[in-house]
Amino acid sequence: MKGKFITLEGCEGAGKTRQMQLLTQYFDEHDIPYIATREPGGTPVAEKIRAVILDQNNAEMSDECEVLLYAAARAEHLKNKVIPALNAGNNVICDRFIDSSFAYQAYARGVGYAAVEQANTFAIENCMPDITLFLDISPKEAFLRKGGADTADRIESAGLAFHEKVYQGYLALAEKFPQRFIKINCRGEKAQTHAAIIAALKEHGIIQ
Amino acid sequence: MKGKFITLEGCEGAGKTRQMQLLTQYFDEHDIPYIATREPGGTPVAEKIRAVILDQNNAEMSDECEVLLYAAARAEHLKNKVIPALNAGNNVICDRFIDSSFAYQAYARGVGYAAVEQANTFAIENCMPDITLFLDISPKEAFLRKGGADTADRIESAGLAFHEKVYQGYLALAEKFPQRFIKINCRGEKAQTHAAIIAALKEHGIIQ
Repeated sequence: MKGKFITLEGCEGAGKTRQMQLLTQYFDEHDIPYIATREPGGTPVAEKIRAVILDQNNAEMSDECEVLLYAAARAEHLKNKVIPALNAGNNVICDRFIDSSFAYQAYARGVGYAAVEQANTFAIENCMPDITLFLDISPKEAFLRKGGADTADRIESAGLAFHEKVYQGYLALAEKFPQRFIKINCRGEKAQTHAAIIAALKEHGIIQ
Repeated sequence: MKGKFITLEGCEGAGKTRQMQLLTQYFDEHDIPYIATREPGGTPVAEKIRAVILDQNNAEMSDECEVLLYAAARAEHLKNKVIPALNAGNNVICDRFIDSSFAYQAYARGVGYAAVEQANTFAIENCMPDITLFLDISPKEAFLRKGGADTADRIESAGLAFHEKVYQGYLALAEKFPQRFIKINCRGEKAQTHAAIIAALKEHGIIQ
């Protein structure tokens, strides 16, 4: 694989969408080849799976089913989009990946790290990110900054206590994967966060 | 668990639908408590997953994604329908279960038994059928009896060569699980097949 696999992670309200925009803009301006994509989704089949996962009418979905649906969408996205792009020499910038399953399902929903890892081992076949940029801000700070909870989908409506567990899960991942999983302070201005992301990518040899 | 978990398996055209009808009719007539259900599906969420799996527009779906979608639907169906019914003392008669994943994905698509088992271990948590009734007829015989291939969905349109591999997969399962996985000769009249099913259920202590 010639391209680098870069993932962005963070709690709701951390500013991932804006940082994805700033990062792809930077790659454009510096003529660095890339594709931008997201999870769950990124291919026609995976987007259909995303619709099932995020449908508020499916609130009774079991945790096990949710874990496996994310893994299914992930397998599809990897095989049909991420891996072909990396092999073609493109960097891949992906909004959420396996660490979201660890933080949301394994830690916050209590499914457990080993169980989520087992379901995902089959899905990803060792294709882990080269670097994961974690937008580090506590849910309480993020929600205050955002002006309250967004109820746009089932996941976001789970409330602040749940998101605090997600955040603790991400912090546990930062300890578990110190080489790959990089905490980015995103409490300041968006331009400062962006600069910290670029600095991290350079420091870890992802871009020059 | 008080109820017994009975699954029906077989290639397309083996006559599962009709045998499901005859079997539930028998349970009705003999006042044996049961629910009848099917895979993939059986709950609102699992039926939505079923629609994604069987959508002919999703023909480019990766094998890994398909395996995980079946496992997701299975997890949901077990947690929210099968296990509660068994615990309430009902027998569960299910049209297809994990052996379909083994026959279709592991053997026929070549994903491999161990990989499919890994993805499903998380989904089923040791809830295996008490008995599996395999309607044993070769795909060629079944297709001839049916009057040609049914193109109603993506799976059925995969052709005779694929279905032959599925059949060989089922035969391998019969050798692997001789206690649970029972071959039922279904080449004769439907009433004969039904009688063989009832005899097998009695012989294995599932019904009296």
